[in-house]
Amino acid sequence: LTGEPDAAVSWEAGSGLFEPILTTDALLLATSDRAWLQALLDVECCLAVAQAEVGVIPKDAADAIAEQCDAGDYDADQLGRDARAGGNPVIPLVTALRARVPAPAREWVHHGATSQDILDTAAMLITRGGLAFIDADLYRLAAGAAGLAAAHRTTLMAGRTLLQPALPIPFGLKAAGWLAATLDNHTAVARLIPGLPLQLGGAAGTLASLGADGAAVTAALAGQTGLAEPLLPWHTARQRIAEIAGVLGTVAGSAAKIALDVALLMQAEVAEALEPAAPGRGGSSTMPHKRNPVLATEALAAARRAHGLVPTLQASLVAEHERAAGAWHAEWGALTDLLRLAGGAAGRAADIVEGLEVDPERMAANLDGRGVLLAERVALHVAPEVGRAEAAARVGDAAARSARSGRPFAEELSGDPVLGPHLDTATLTGLLDPRTYLGSSDLFIDRALEAHRQAWPG
Amino acid sequence: LTGEPDAAVSWEAGSGLFEPILTTDALLLATSDRAWLQALLDVECCLAVAQAEVGVIPKDAADAIAEQCDAGDYDADQLGRDARAGGNPVIPLVTALRARVPAPAREWVHHGATSQDILDTAAMLITRGGLAFIDADLYRLAAGAAGLAAAHRTTLMAGRTLLQPALPIPFGLKAAGWLAATLDNHTAVARLIPGLPLQLGGAAGTLASLGADGAAVTAALAGQTGLAEPLLPWHTARQRIAEIAGVLGTVAGSAAKIALDVALLMQAEVAEALEPAAPGRGGSSTMPHKRNPVLATEALAAARRAHGLVPTLQASLVAEHERAAGAWHAEWGALTDLLRLAGGAAGRAADIVEGLEVDPERMAANLDGRGVLLAERVALHVAPEVGRAEAAARVGDAAARSARSGRPFAEELSGDPVLGPHLDTATLTGLLDPRTYLGSSDLFIDRALEAHRQAWPG
Amino acid sequence: LTGEPDAAVSWEAGSGLFEPILTTDALLLATSDRAWLQALLDVECCLAVAQAEVGVIPKDAADAIAEQCDAGDYDADQLGRDARAGGNPVIPLVTALRARVPAPAREWVHHGATSQDILDTAAMLITRGGLAFIDADLYRLAAGAAGLAAAHRTTLMAGRTLLQPALPIPFGLKAAGWLAATLDNHTAVARLIPGLPLQLGGAAGTLASLGADGAAVTAALAGQTGLAEPLLPWHTARQRIAEIAGVLGTVAGSAAKIALDVALLMQAEVAEALEPAAPGRGGSSTMPHKRNPVLATEALAAARRAHGLVPTLQASLVAEHERAAGAWHAEWGALTDLLRLAGGAAGRAADIVEGLEVDPERMAANLDGRGVLLAERVALHVAPEVGRAEAAARVGDAAARSARSGRPFAEELSGDPVLGPHLDTATLTGLLDPRTYLGSSDLFIDRALEAHRQAWPG
Amino acid sequence: LTGEPDAAVSWEAGSGLFEPILTTDALLLATSDRAWLQALLDVECCLAVAQAEVGVIPKDAADAIAEQCDAGDYDADQLGRDARAGGNPVIPLVTALRARVPAPAREWVHHGATSQDILDTAAMLITRGGLAFIDADLYRLAAGAAGLAAAHRTTLMAGRTLLQPALPIPFGLKAAGWLAATLDNHTAVARLIPGLPLQLGGAAGTLASLGADGAAVTAALAGQTGLAEPLLPWHTARQRIAEIAGVLGTVAGSAAKIALDVALLMQAEVAEALEPAAPGRGGSSTMPHKRNPVLATEALAAARRAHGLVPTLQASLVAEHERAAGAWHAEWGALTDLLRLAGGAAGRAADIVEGLEVDPERMAANLDGRGVLLAERVALHVAPEVGRAEAAARVGDAAARSARSGRPFAEELSGDPVLGPHLDTATLTGLLDPRTYLGSSDLFIDRALEAHRQAWPG
Repeated sequence: LTGEPDAAVSWEAGSGLFEPILTTDALLLATSDRAWLQALLDVECCLAVAQAEVGVIPKDAADAIAEQCDAGDYDADQLGRDARAGGNPVIPLVTALRARVPAPAREWVHHGATSQDILDTAAMLITRGGLAFIDADLYRLAAGAAGLAAAHRTTLMAGRTLLQPALPIPFGLKAAGWLAATLDNHTAVARLIPGLPLQLGGAAGTLASLGADGAAVTAALAGQTGLAEPLLPWHTARQRIAEIAGVLGTVAGSAAKIALDVALLMQAEVAEALEPAAPGRGGSSTMPHKRNPVLATEALAAARRAHGLVPTLQASLVAEHERAAGAWHAEWGALTDLLRLAGGAAGRAADIVEGLEVDPERMAANLDGRGVLLAERVALHVAPEVGRAEAAARVGDAAARSARSGRPFAEELSGDPVLGPHLDTATLTGLLDPRTYLGSSDLFIDRALEAHRQAWPG
Repeated sequence: LTGEPDAAVSWEAGSGLFEPILTTDALLLATSDRAWLQALLDVECCLAVAQAEVGVIPKDAADAIAEQCDAGDYDADQLGRDARAGGNPVIPLVTALRARVPAPAREWVHHGATSQDILDTAAMLITRGGLAFIDADLYRLAAGAAGLAAAHRTTLMAGRTLLQPALPIPFGLKAAGWLAATLDNHTAVARLIPGLPLQLGGAAGTLASLGADGAAVTAALAGQTGLAEPLLPWHTARQRIAEIAGVLGTVAGSAAKIALDVALLMQAEVAEALEPAAPGRGGSSTMPHKRNPVLATEALAAARRAHGLVPTLQASLVAEHERAAGAWHAEWGALTDLLRLAGGAAGRAADIVEGLEVDPERMAANLDGRGVLLAERVALHVAPEVGRAEAAARVGDAAARSARSGRPFAEELSGDPVLGPHLDTATLTGLLDPRTYLGSSDLFIDRALEAHRQAWPG
Repeated sequence: LTGEPDAAVSWEAGSGLFEPILTTDALLLATSDRAWLQALLDVECCLAVAQAEVGVIPKDAADAIAEQCDAGDYDADQLGRDARAGGNPVIPLVTALRARVPAPAREWVHHGATSQDILDTAAMLITRGGLAFIDADLYRLAAGAAGLAAAHRTTLMAGRTLLQPALPIPFGLKAAGWLAATLDNHTAVARLIPGLPLQLGGAAGTLASLGADGAAVTAALAGQTGLAEPLLPWHTARQRIAEIAGVLGTVAGSAAKIALDVALLMQAEVAEALEPAAPGRGGSSTMPHKRNPVLATEALAAARRAHGLVPTLQASLVAEHERAAGAWHAEWGALTDLLRLAGGAAGRAADIVEGLEVDPERMAANLDGRGVLLAERVALHVAPEVGRAEAAARVGDAAARSARSGRPFAEELSGDPVLGPHLDTATLTGLLDPRTYLGSSDLFIDRALEAHRQAWPG
Repeated sequence: LTGEPDAAVSWEAGSGLFEPILTTDALLLATSDRAWLQALLDVECCLAVAQAEVGVIPKDAADAIAEQCDAGDYDADQLGRDARAGGNPVIPLVTALRARVPAPAREWVHHGATSQDILDTAAMLITRGGLAFIDADLYRLAAGAAGLAAAHRTTLMAGRTLLQPALPIPFGLKAAGWLAATLDNHTAVARLIPGLPLQLGGAAGTLASLGADGAAVTAALAGQTGLAEPLLPWHTARQRIAEIAGVLGTVAGSAAKIALDVALLMQAEVAEALEPAAPGRGGSSTMPHKRNPVLATEALAAARRAHGLVPTLQASLVAEHERAAGAWHAEWGALTDLLRLAGGAAGRAADIVEGLEVDPERMAANLDGRGVLLAERVALHVAPEVGRAEAAARVGDAAARSARSGRPFAEELSGDPVLGPHLDTATLTGLLDPRTYLGSSDLFIDRALEAHRQAWPG
């Protein structure tokens, strides 16, 4: 039981015209119809084996059932259409499985389980598989961001707030921020995986048809599937689904933040960094000169779609009695899409960060030779003498004059009748040197790198 | 150019394990990868033909291009994977189309257009096709609801507010409400379809590469595609997409309201109506006695998913400059899914209403022989004599006593020392007869039926 | 009955710490608690007057009721807390109103109505008032955009796709796009307003307690409120609410698109346009040199919040039976917030566009003296001779060489061994002149201006 | 520094016409404008004290600043309106605070901080306060559910799936499910609170203006506020906000699930449980006999609104560079509302569960004397003899005949020619006794109760 379908086979089912654009091959495979079908069969198989282990069904029956649990023997499209009559694909799948298993083993197929037991447990297998691939991309993303953070400690650029240049920052600090977010998400994913629970409750959550064997079968099924044993069946207690949705939405959003930063840095007028080039990537169907932020665009699109799916999965918490009439059925496609899209955003962000082309010279140039971004520093320096409010106003005026006239900011400051006397040339040169106005940047970069080392030790 | 793909062929592409459960065959076909691929090719074909018509490209070239525009000659899965490099499937499709078209016609493939022109126009063809099928289900739904409204003018049941019995209503009035909502949605869909616009703007919305022929080509393309000519290219003015999303979300929600009513009426303890039976429908994988509201459940699930997609499409309004970096790319899958889900909800609601099994006797029984639902009427009757507040309080107490004691409400009312004197037996019998307390129900049913007759005249 | 509360009084109720940031004063007033309270009282008043007109209640009673319908006499905060017991504020309001109206008129307060009748009708009054203010901002926005479109027909700038320079466009065309979107939204708002329906159904939608007078009272109430008479009561047929939500979400999104364009143009590295300056606007709490896109930021934030509210209102379509248990109650706050936020986005966009500072010189400079944005044109020009694919490749290479070397694009093109022979100096000068590669821009600007003239004739 | 505003004062600011309906007094207080204003001032105060502690500013200055940090001295409405110019309320608040603090201390107000530092840290204080109240309601909810689980181990009712009776369950098991979900949410809230981080980054996240003192000031501020010290400033790394949103959405949804169960059980036709009665609660404005599920309705409405806010907060992850232009500004109102609504849902669910009126007799009656809900058990019993498929079919037919005829299920089973021989009277009596078909229900109840004991030990 691996949760990782065979790539060659899975592509048969069709990856689609649009879906590859917003996800990775790994996630397409891990969440394909084929993967789902195998997961459903894996659960039926594990259930039979677990029940044989506990003595609820004959060992021979479990063997005979296990032999028929290869997704290659079933037709997902046909099952999907047959699923309409009962509202879920487990009903026709059990029929098909029973048809393949010879008597008397046939009687023990799906024993003691209800459709939701199979589907929910399969969903956790699919989620586990999908999260493993997502975490692999978070690993790449973190490694790439850590490399940038370490390499660009002294590469100065404009920190930008509300899309306007604010203060100088090292590019390494921006990368450290990407890293820290990625580590948070890795932590969340890593915490989620071992708690993914199996579902076994029978028709109404009592395991009535298993008599006194409910607990033993559940424990054995946990062993077979490698999933956690829940406190209670969770057929209408969907906190775990909501939590998965929250983590996936956060992964997608954090990845899209990196993509947005890069798309903005790639603007021709900024030109401080470029997505990695690849043959054909970023081209236009008509404009030979273009180099589009394609990876970033795909990550941003994936996150947009992901965030729309989270409330659908959270709303499924509001479930009627012992099985929801609709809320549950809305989960399957939403969870599948959300895994794909979160994985797509993380994968694209990893691709970007791993191969980012950084232009330190352009960063330096954009930082503004005129020194205006150090306005805060100058104002703070003269504040004790002229008062904070007047300092801020006069420094701001000098910055505005410098922008209009094109004259150096230093010159405008020196010429100010109130500020000038407090700002001799040496002082001004010192104040306007961005390299000495980076505050705790080095410390923050160190912290992020240290956290990275601890996140994947060894 | 029809927008209606060939069913036999389209199924090849796979309908999926989960998707049929929440949609109809018609929508699966109308929105399949195959349908999208054909729509994209239809646009390239129509563009060439339109340009030949106007004299921008040679007639022979258009013919040669048109010959290669059969989706059966292309591989959607391969195009999807190749689409990653440029972020959309039109780029590899144009490459593949050019490879099939012989020189010199090849040079005229995709002339003057940008990827977004092709994709947006194809999206409108797909939307037109999907809406046509949705409107067909609205027709069935309206017809079914109209039939119920007409047939059940005098079938009394409890009107229920906040899930509690309130006043008697004819079941026909409930059906008239379903009908009126359906007519509203039909009106919205019918208004939307003729305004679906083609997109043609070229690389940045100026149609620069068409020189002075932009307007003529646009008009000819409108003729070829049957789509409306927009005021301006709408590459980053997505109001129409947002409007489509709004209408589809409303269609899904209105259908789900009907489904919810029926699921609630089907509860064993209520048992006033049943979804139409069909072999295998509504069965459980374990419980032989069950008859589940499967159609309703599927409609409810479809609407839940649909409503999560609407804000994704609305957020795409917030697009950067002349082509969005992500917002546009998030539309394709969201629009496809939304068409399917709205169509699924409408289709299931139509199935329900067309074959609804109504149990007038159970409705009458649940209406409460004790007459408590007429409490409002009794209170209003005695209010002039005893004051409204005291009337309401005493009538409420009588209702509560009747519930506790099991004695008829009339008896408890007569026994009240203040109310009794104003309520002789004949008066009480009259007041507690629900048939004479239906207000404007008949009028409302008439209005809905008349509107139905006008909605699809002839 | 105006729907426009008295400003001076309304501010008493508190505008809040955060709310003014994302909306306008007009919308704060139109949707304040005070405005809602007055609207609820207006409905009770109109109902009484309408019933007197029809003869259902005495004229004196209506007069006595009308006298007590001034919101200034009631305490919204107290009503809000008292509303918990019954789940809506109409129940305590009716109690409070009855307490003020002397007998015997008191008995006729709220006659024949249910809480939802009052609240829904008041919601339509609030919506009408809010939409009127929103449309006024759309008027300002359209006028501003039309002014820019007309003034900047020949102001060339880079059209940008996926955040990269693509082709030259007139700034006037970008403004025409803003205008066209605004006109679409004005059309939608203007179509919505006259159809806003009153609600009158009584306890379960039959108007039972009005006997045979239901239709007459409804018609009279339409006269009193100026609202449309619906086909049927719409207590659980919320298409109109969903439609309002869709339009408001679209208004917010379209306004935010303009804001995003301007925020991007304001980037120091782009610097092609600036929000209008105002004392104190756009300042930072620490950085004297900054000029932040504050209006744009507020519009973007408003749209983000707006889009989250739309699905909440659409989901309210899925209502149980004759009154929803929760879906209805979720509408009030969501609709209030959505009106504010859509109005806020539109208002800020109008402020931006009305006073936009455009820098044509910077636009020209960013358009790139090297002429690379005309690459498409050059490639199309030589394609007949060298083939489209080779033309695109070689032109792209020349653009890349020009970017690396800093040499003019023309020079790199001339130097290409294949392209050079087809591109003499005069030809190249002509091809690289952006003023002659604007396609249908003028036509599109004309169309938008003409549509503007027709949108608000006279 | 408490995060718990003074109730008497806070009400002055107005609780609103609609807001109390969907939240609790505690949350209204904890998230009022007054509370926010105090939190903002608390952060300015703590910052000054922390800086004095570290020696960055004079102790006297910190004392002078601290003296002016009482929200009662400021006007939230005025600050809100003044906030428009800069896009956030901290800018005018700092101005107002500086105006009250005498020179020279005035110069040290807001030293080294940017608006976002103050607002984000205040948001964490507000969140901490709100979560504390929410957890108090989760405590009540858990205690109530545990009481019901323990008291109703043998109270049998119909377990219902897809709104249809399925199998017998103890009502105590349903309550144990509510309990387990509540414990999950308590765990999530309890894990969240200690990690709530302060924010301190200065203008662009480097703490440049604090020179070498950034780390020391940050640590001291953590001590003053009791908030966690983050790895890095998180101005555009909003994972924590997204996580808070996820947890609050889950709390709301889990509470609404309980509310939905109770609203469904309260249906007159089911009548198995009732919300606790209170004077005036659940009344109708017109119908004296009604008892509406008001608490449940309010919880359901609160959850609907809450789920629409989660994606708004998740989308704020996608932030530009070092401060987002809009995404950040969209958080404040959304977080405030989400705290209120999650708290409202939890509070109402606690009210419901604490006082739930359970009707075991009605539960037993609805369980169906005919025994049909044991159909699964009968089918499983005879399956070894007649085969599973035939068993299921014949048992299902018997159930259907029993429903039509009104004859006992046992009789129909005995009369079946195939089943009858395997079902003597004693066997049938045993099989149809629900008390012996409860599977692991007792175990599950035990587990939930044990987890409850461990959740709040001592």
